Amino acid sequence: MAQVAVMLPDGSVNKIDRDSQEGLQALRESVAFFLRAALTDSFAGIRLGEYVGAKDSDEGFYVDSDRDEMQVSVDELAALEAKIKEFAKANLKVEHVVGDVDELAAQYAADPYTVELLQEAAQDGKVNLYKAGDFVAPANAPILVYSNLIKNYKLLSVAGAYWKGMSSNPMLQRIYGTAFYKKDDLEADLQRRQEAKERDHRVIGSQLDLFFVDPKVGAGLPYWMPKGSTIRRTIERYIIDREVADGYQHVYTPVLMNLDAYKTSGHWEHYRDDMFPPMDMGDGEMLELRPMNCPSHIQVYKHHLRSYRDLPLRIAELGMMHRYEKSGALSGLQRVREMTLNDGHTFVSLDQIRSEFAKILKLIMSVYEDFDITDYTFRLSYRDPKNTEKYYANDEMWEQSQSMLKAAMDDLNLDYYEAEGEAAFYGPKLDIQTKTALGNEETMSTIQLDFMLPERFGLKYTGKDGQEHQPVMIHRGVVGTMERFIAYLTEIYKGAFPTWLAPEQVHIIPVSDDKHGEYAEDLAAKLRAANVRVVVDHRNEKMGYKIRETQTQKVPYTLVVGNDEMANQSVSVRKYGEDKAATLAFADFESELLADIASYSRKK
Amino acid sequence: MAQVAVMLPDGSVNKIDRDSQEGLQALRESVAFFLRAALTDSFAGIRLGEYVGAKDSDEGFYVDSDRDEMQVSVDELAALEAKIKEFAKANLKVEHVVGDVDELAAQYAADPYTVELLQEAAQDGKVNLYKAGDFVAPANAPILVYSNLIKNYKLLSVAGAYWKGMSSNPMLQRIYGTAFYKKDDLEADLQRRQEAKERDHRVIGSQLDLFFVDPKVGAGLPYWMPKGSTIRRTIERYIIDREVADGYQHVYTPVLMNLDAYKTSGHWEHYRDDMFPPMDMGDGEMLELRPMNCPSHIQVYKHHLRSYRDLPLRIAELGMMHRYEKSGALSGLQRVREMTLNDGHTFVSLDQIRSEFAKILKLIMSVYEDFDITDYTFRLSYRDPKNTEKYYANDEMWEQSQSMLKAAMDDLNLDYYEAEGEAAFYGPKLDIQTKTALGNEETMSTIQLDFMLPERFGLKYTGKDGQEHQPVMIHRGVVGTMERFIAYLTEIYKGAFPTWLAPEQVHIIPVSDDKHGEYAEDLAAKLRAANVRVVVDHRNEKMGYKIRETQTQKVPYTLVVGNDEMANQSVSVRKYGEDKAATLAFADFESELLADIASYSRKK
Repeated sequence: MAQVAVMLPDGSVNKIDRDSQEGLQALRESVAFFLRAALTDSFAGIRLGEYVGAKDSDEGFYVDSDRDEMQVSVDELAALEAKIKEFAKANLKVEHVVGDVDELAAQYAADPYTVELLQEAAQDGKVNLYKAGDFVAPANAPILVYSNLIKNYKLLSVAGAYWKGMSSNPMLQRIYGTAFYKKDDLEADLQRRQEAKERDHRVIGSQLDLFFVDPKVGAGLPYWMPKGSTIRRTIERYIIDREVADGYQHVYTPVLMNLDAYKTSGHWEHYRDDMFPPMDMGDGEMLELRPMNCPSHIQVYKHHLRSYRDLPLRIAELGMMHRYEKSGALSGLQRVREMTLNDGHTFVSLDQIRSEFAKILKLIMSVYEDFDITDYTFRLSYRDPKNTEKYYANDEMWEQSQSMLKAAMDDLNLDYYEAEGEAAFYGPKLDIQTKTALGNEETMSTIQLDFMLPERFGLKYTGKDGQEHQPVMIHRGVVGTMERFIAYLTEIYKGAFPTWLAPEQVHIIPVSDDKHGEYAEDLAAKLRAANVRVVVDHRNEKMGYKIRETQTQKVPYTLVVGNDEMANQSVSVRKYGEDKAATLAFADFESELLADIASYSRKK
Repeated sequence: MAQVAVMLPDGSVNKIDRDSQEGLQALRESVAFFLRAALTDSFAGIRLGEYVGAKDSDEGFYVDSDRDEMQVSVDELAALEAKIKEFAKANLKVEHVVGDVDELAAQYAADPYTVELLQEAAQDGKVNLYKAGDFVAPANAPILVYSNLIKNYKLLSVAGAYWKGMSSNPMLQRIYGTAFYKKDDLEADLQRRQEAKERDHRVIGSQLDLFFVDPKVGAGLPYWMPKGSTIRRTIERYIIDREVADGYQHVYTPVLMNLDAYKTSGHWEHYRDDMFPPMDMGDGEMLELRPMNCPSHIQVYKHHLRSYRDLPLRIAELGMMHRYEKSGALSGLQRVREMTLNDGHTFVSLDQIRSEFAKILKLIMSVYEDFDITDYTFRLSYRDPKNTEKYYANDEMWEQSQSMLKAAMDDLNLDYYEAEGEAAFYGPKLDIQTKTALGNEETMSTIQLDFMLPERFGLKYTGKDGQEHQPVMIHRGVVGTMERFIAYLTEIYKGAFPTWLAPEQVHIIPVSDDKHGEYAEDLAAKLRAANVRVVVDHRNEKMGYKIRETQTQKVPYTLVVGNDEMANQSVSVRKYGEDKAATLAFADFESELLADIASYSRKK
């Protein structure tokens, strides 16, 4: 194993494995350090913010900076890369220096960001620095001692980033980059990034006009444009209909609740940082935007006296929730502050856990099939058998329910990973992990048993024996939040939504609008009567332009109609992604189209 | 005209027309005064809150009280009525007394409510009182001098009411009553109240388990139970589909927005009292629960550069909004703090106003037809021609648009009332007034022109001339908020929702569950495949009980199936409200049912 010399912020030097995570991180820290040097060298008076060599090998590094006149542009990245190359070739050795923070502050008076970074890093007036050639920076994290290992790197992009991630602070320019020891690794990473860019739901969301977020009117609060709304509405109706058919009772409950409920539930105690600030309504009333729907569905349960005949009671909702996330963490539809969860809570007796769990699991897998989600794994989480005192105290409930979940998984012949000690405090759970288009693992669905909330809220039902019993609550999500799910679908479909979801399903282009526009409208009317979303393109543009546009917009079916088609009641059909068009009788096209829609995203 | 002697709080006495509103109010004030007396007389140590003889002849009067042990119950109302009768027969004369508030406070020390009322009414340490016999009360409002006019009155009900209407205060008992000079008027009123009770959406909502509100978890924040949710979801899907077919683009926009947007729109300046408190997100960001959707739809407009080709641009949403209402004003689904509006905003050029207005109006009338809403009138509001300076300053826009609205109404041959001076500051409007089941007028739909918001938010489009122009915005609501609309429908349908809306459309009762239960399930499966909501009643209860229950629950179709039906593939059908059942081939029943559903609420 290749070893590299790495300096720690305290000045000590170690040899570590080059190919370890730490090794990669040290390389990236190095490149970031020399990018800072390159910026200082290239732009007199530039101020420098944070620089970070990412821990996770999926990520790269970044350096923040701020210039008076024009900000750094992508066009300047090549020159900066070249400058880094000079430093690398010179094989500058990084040295450790301890500086006096007051002296440094005076020296860097023109750069308030650097001063602040130095002051933060200082202990007893002293601060650890790395120095290479003339260039000095606060010692953040382990760094390579020799710069000649910097060979395979790339500056990727420039984006605005608020100083310290807070939108009230000035915006700096953040230069992102990546680096590897081996050329092949760099190339594979760049390819993966290219792929990621093509699938990025934020990029596609803007190209297809699905949604936008404008931090000026609300960070993390997406606006769903008409096309994105059509996709969302279609999914919402689908999932509600599936759940209702499966015995769920859908409700609408308020997004606001008296804060006391979240004190009872424990959310206020354990989860406050993720909650919005409560609103004082006067009159002693504090209202809170709900961070979860469970207490709302508990109200629905409690509204009536319940008996064993009511169980399992399945309450579901497309429940809007609000969670506070730092503005720096927000991203497109993936990380938002307002979200609508495909939520559901099933109230069962202890002996119903196994069958209800299996029922939920079957629903989830069947929904996945409809969306053509095939790449997923199961993770069954138990309590830690060595630390049972860390969990809700009821051994019988734990033992019985854990074995019921396991038995249900086995009944269905499913492979699963058993994660001891990963259960929640309040009960065991199953997570269903999908892979995003970029290979990241994400929890899409979850089935969580909860012994605690029924107790905290005093839930009861009358058993066959005439006595009061406490139900078990099962939290379950099938497709998660609308926001995240549609971000995920956008990536896996690369924006080419299957016909049932496509905002525009059929685009009809008359060869000549004067001659064939009316025929096109006749066809459109027939399709609309069958609930198909059709646009007739009457614009005065070239045919080639129109067809290219339907491809860019990823419309599943483009029809061209001219003299022949009109004479034969036919259409010339081009499917998205196919080069050639086929001529079909309109009736045949219509039945093919309707069958396509009815089959959801399933593999044909 | 009969005259009555009325004393004012300052002690002066006037003769007024008995049948005037003031005359009726004085009578009710009198009865309320003597109800207080009766309470004092009947229950030693009772504390007395506010008493009010309502102004509006639709309403009656009320008296608040608080007892240590048991509160006043409805069973005690008859005795209190008898006591009032004694006072009336004795023909006690009301006298005017000026009391010293400190002395009175000492005298009523055991009754903090009375003390507070006296202190509030006091001026310079003195307070006006009415006195009759031994009994004294703060002089609220004009009152009859002679109690022998009190003959036709009724104590109606008892309900909890917070002291001063604030939920942080103690809850008192409020006794409601009504009174008239003539016996016939009282009887008509009681009948009307009976009718009102039978149609009260809160009563029906509870009987049919449609929704509930629990002030402990959130005043004015309704929980829609599964059955109410089914009605709401059906209406939401219906209205979205109608609007999309009519050229609207439905969106989802956040319920939160940066407070600045409401400063720009003017809502924060003029409407703040009705808004929720802003949330300080830190980082200089203030978020506000939106009180209206207009600024959100403006963001959608502004997200792209717009040209004349995009107009009319029709943006619609089922937009959730929050408005602050005092807890005392909240009522069922009628007055709430969280509501979802069937909202839409159309952006047009000045010359498109007439046709767009007509298009919206036709949509509204067509939707009314589907819901069988027939009792409505039009109210066209113009600016005041004598005070044009009070309105948005653009004479041409006003003149042109007012005449366009009028012309559009005339084109459609509609009768309408022209209300000069009732336009909003920002433009003329049409209100469509419906009558509730109880005869109250209510604005169901509205079409409002707005010249101001496009200016405030700097909205533009590029005209055919290549120049920038300012669009006109049309605010329009078809069925208003889901909450209010469903409250209204509950009243006009008296809870007997037409089949397309009924939460349970068909209830199947097997004569013997053992023998016919399976046949019942077969039929149910067929109906469910056609999207019908069916319940099979497998319970071990008597047939008569089950049928009575389907009537109470107002299920449109009750099917009974036994040997004959099973042999003949038929069903015995009883429609809601009909006494007799008819036997039909199942296929015939199914087509009748589906035709019924497809016809919405329209008169068959």
